[in-house]
Amino acid sequence: MVFRQFFLEGLGCISYLIGCSQTGVCAVVDPQRDVDGYLQVAQSYGLRITHIFDTHLHADHVSGNRELAARTGATIYLPAQARAAFKHQPVHDGDEVTIGTVTLLAIHTPGHTPEHMCLAVIDHTRGPEPWFLLTGDFLFVGDVGRPDLLGEAEMRQLADQMHTSLFDRLSALDDGLEVFPGHGAGSLCGRHMNAKLSTTLGFERRFNPALQPRSRQEFIAWLTQDLPPQPANVPYIKQLNRQGPPILGELYRPKPLTAQAVRDLLRGQGPTPAILDVRSPAEFAAGYMPGALNVPVSNGQFATRAGWFIPPERPIVLIVGREAEADRATRALARVGYDRVIGYLVNGIAAWRALGLPTASLALWTPERLRSEALTRQGEPLPGVTVVDVRDRSEWQQGHIPGAVHIPLAELAQRADELNPFRPTAVICANGTRSSTAASLLTACGFKHVANVMGGMEGWEAAGYPVVIDADDQRDMSSIGRHPSSSW
Amino acid sequence: MVFRQFFLEGLGCISYLIGCSQTGVCAVVDPQRDVDGYLQVAQSYGLRITHIFDTHLHADHVSGNRELAARTGATIYLPAQARAAFKHQPVHDGDEVTIGTVTLLAIHTPGHTPEHMCLAVIDHTRGPEPWFLLTGDFLFVGDVGRPDLLGEAEMRQLADQMHTSLFDRLSALDDGLEVFPGHGAGSLCGRHMNAKLSTTLGFERRFNPALQPRSRQEFIAWLTQDLPPQPANVPYIKQLNRQGPPILGELYRPKPLTAQAVRDLLRGQGPTPAILDVRSPAEFAAGYMPGALNVPVSNGQFATRAGWFIPPERPIVLIVGREAEADRATRALARVGYDRVIGYLVNGIAAWRALGLPTASLALWTPERLRSEALTRQGEPLPGVTVVDVRDRSEWQQGHIPGAVHIPLAELAQRADELNPFRPTAVICANGTRSSTAASLLTACGFKHVANVMGGMEGWEAAGYPVVIDADDQRDMSSIGRHPSSSW
Repeated sequence: MVFRQFFLEGLGCISYLIGCSQTGVCAVVDPQRDVDGYLQVAQSYGLRITHIFDTHLHADHVSGNRELAARTGATIYLPAQARAAFKHQPVHDGDEVTIGTVTLLAIHTPGHTPEHMCLAVIDHTRGPEPWFLLTGDFLFVGDVGRPDLLGEAEMRQLADQMHTSLFDRLSALDDGLEVFPGHGAGSLCGRHMNAKLSTTLGFERRFNPALQPRSRQEFIAWLTQDLPPQPANVPYIKQLNRQGPPILGELYRPKPLTAQAVRDLLRGQGPTPAILDVRSPAEFAAGYMPGALNVPVSNGQFATRAGWFIPPERPIVLIVGREAEADRATRALARVGYDRVIGYLVNGIAAWRALGLPTASLALWTPERLRSEALTRQGEPLPGVTVVDVRDRSEWQQGHIPGAVHIPLAELAQRADELNPFRPTAVICANGTRSSTAASLLTACGFKHVANVMGGMEGWEAAGYPVVIDADDQRDMSSIGRHPSSSW
Repeated sequence: MVFRQFFLEGLGCISYLIGCSQTGVCAVVDPQRDVDGYLQVAQSYGLRITHIFDTHLHADHVSGNRELAARTGATIYLPAQARAAFKHQPVHDGDEVTIGTVTLLAIHTPGHTPEHMCLAVIDHTRGPEPWFLLTGDFLFVGDVGRPDLLGEAEMRQLADQMHTSLFDRLSALDDGLEVFPGHGAGSLCGRHMNAKLSTTLGFERRFNPALQPRSRQEFIAWLTQDLPPQPANVPYIKQLNRQGPPILGELYRPKPLTAQAVRDLLRGQGPTPAILDVRSPAEFAAGYMPGALNVPVSNGQFATRAGWFIPPERPIVLIVGREAEADRATRALARVGYDRVIGYLVNGIAAWRALGLPTASLALWTPERLRSEALTRQGEPLPGVTVVDVRDRSEWQQGHIPGAVHIPLAELAQRADELNPFRPTAVICANGTRSSTAASLLTACGFKHVANVMGGMEGWEAAGYPVVIDADDQRDMSSIGRHPSSSW
């Protein structure tokens, strides 16, 4: 049996190629939207891709199912309950699909979504029983799928179904079954995923927090608490995956745009494009187009964070430092459903300036500077500057600057009106990346004096500056986990 | 926990990086000799490599332990029984080594070698008990380590120890333990490895042929039969790994050599270098240096096959088609202990010819040509040509050309005297790669009329030409497995 795991850093998506070298055919399960990797691996093993599976309708990334089908002629298999609106073979609980010497057996496991199925894989050259389980977004390494991505209304029912799936549906399966999940650390689809990308049913039964004995009600309460933020484009991506993701074809390279062309787009009659500046925080601060949003493409969470702020159907113009960043950003955006990247500004900010168009710069503060502006020598908050901490709740709870205001980055667009736009505002996160996004957002909202604190709380703490933990959080500390993804 | 598996195609070696992101440290287990991959991955996770383990003294490839230690300052851990002659920390059965939140627990499992140990890995962030087992060359996916690489004398005792290791030493361990082996398909260290690179103890207990109930005597008989050929350099590599592999440093690029320089090397007082032509069979046949051995570097088994014919300490001059092939070949040869690659001939055969030095060409036959030369219209062998089939025994047993002589490639250097060097000789394998090596060997031995059959038995069978199965093999067919590695 040929078996290959594909891990997509950042989104944390995991997909699989499973093939039979004796008959020269293979399946891809949960393909990402850019499918060249599967084609290359299949070719290197001399395999033809004949089957494409999705374990469920994804909410965090656009499936590559139709893209891959268009390139290979393979058949798409989806859970029947997904009611997908494009050509596919519906799969029901208990269905078996055989590919050469390999059989995939569908097990309906609702919980993350109502239609979710796992695939138990049998290699007939090894034995007649399942060797491993592809668990999609149902069972992760050290975690299970979150039940809230379909909305508050469905959350409790899905959590209830998750209990049944975990404790009743899996009960007949052997401890010695390997488990290969659909996500690893970095993904927004769970809460505490491990960075290791496989496990066994036996080990998870013993050590996965979700599989510990709890009453159904306790389980539902536990599963629906402490959920990380979700990007605004989740319903859009879900809808795209149900309707059928548009096929991009081999080349979806961003177009080079002159400064005149970008200016005309911004002034024109059509929908105003978002200006997405994907350079590093330092490059951005040195000079940017007013109104631009800074989300560095070098960060693994690039696509997820763009999803917090840019409506999915809005056209996008990229500002890049190097041409390769335009390709990388376009590919990453396509994976989460942004298909309207118009292009990138050739020669970037320099071209913009050369045309006599306005640019701005952002103040960069060191932790030292922030210390002197924001706190007295005794460590008491000074009134002259607002410190906005945009880290996630779990990070904030570990300790923050005295007098700082906590607004997680994901909530900043909605909650910016809690802040005074005329007051000097210093934005801080763990290391200066998320705070650059936040600073760009605030200046675009009309804030007059914004500074990004480079080095962030890591630099602040390394310098030994004052940190406080709120009384409530001291009490909660022992029971609340960290979200490793959020601090990346 | 950070966990990454590295698979080296061809040699089929698997190594691992296991780290703790909380404390920023990691270990590498069974490193291959070119260590850049580990350094890159460690850096990408922000980890420092502090520990290096070998599960045993490898016989098929040179360990990267000292190379990696030289680059990182990490400590080398080896089984105490290995009695390695260089600086290391000896590990005994039951020893625990803790790296941040990860503990590696040594379990002595002799069988492939006397000193072999497995490492059970505990991730303390998940639970206090082992999550998975690094099984080195002890337990493979669908196979166990072969017991004969230390020689005939030790084979039965090792097979006996393998029985104890498999059935007694592992008995306390849980079915739900994941198993990550030191080799996958392509490796010479086992007989029937699967192409999938992980499994579980529970699944192997149920479906691994080696773990099925047998008396100790039956087990020993079973484990010591039907073993694939081993390269002549196995004892040399073993010795290198015991003495301490030489450190190559970052750059071990082959030197460009002029035709004059190569001629002087061949005529000089020093040891005569082997001429290793790594081009494709077609390129080789069109023109080669007399005496050259053709082992195409594009083939995954390149390094293993070179090991069948070239003494490990002999200097080597490479003939390449493109410069990149020289780098690739040098790296692949270093992995199996050939540290004396002098360089490669710049401009290849053309430069050799330009100097007025002799070249030769090799006849390429199609299956059609072979059909007409070797068999009557009725399919009876003709006396005019010797057909030498150099495939492995298991391939030969599936069917061969009537009247062909079977000498597996690995045995050809020893058994060439069974053939008449003055008689026209056509060499065939599965597809024309191994037969090109064989043809180059025979011409170097003085055979006058040698042809390589392009397309090999695959082309022969596709054309519907006669194939016979020997009576003995028809009887044996059901009980004998194929060696997937050998037909690559």
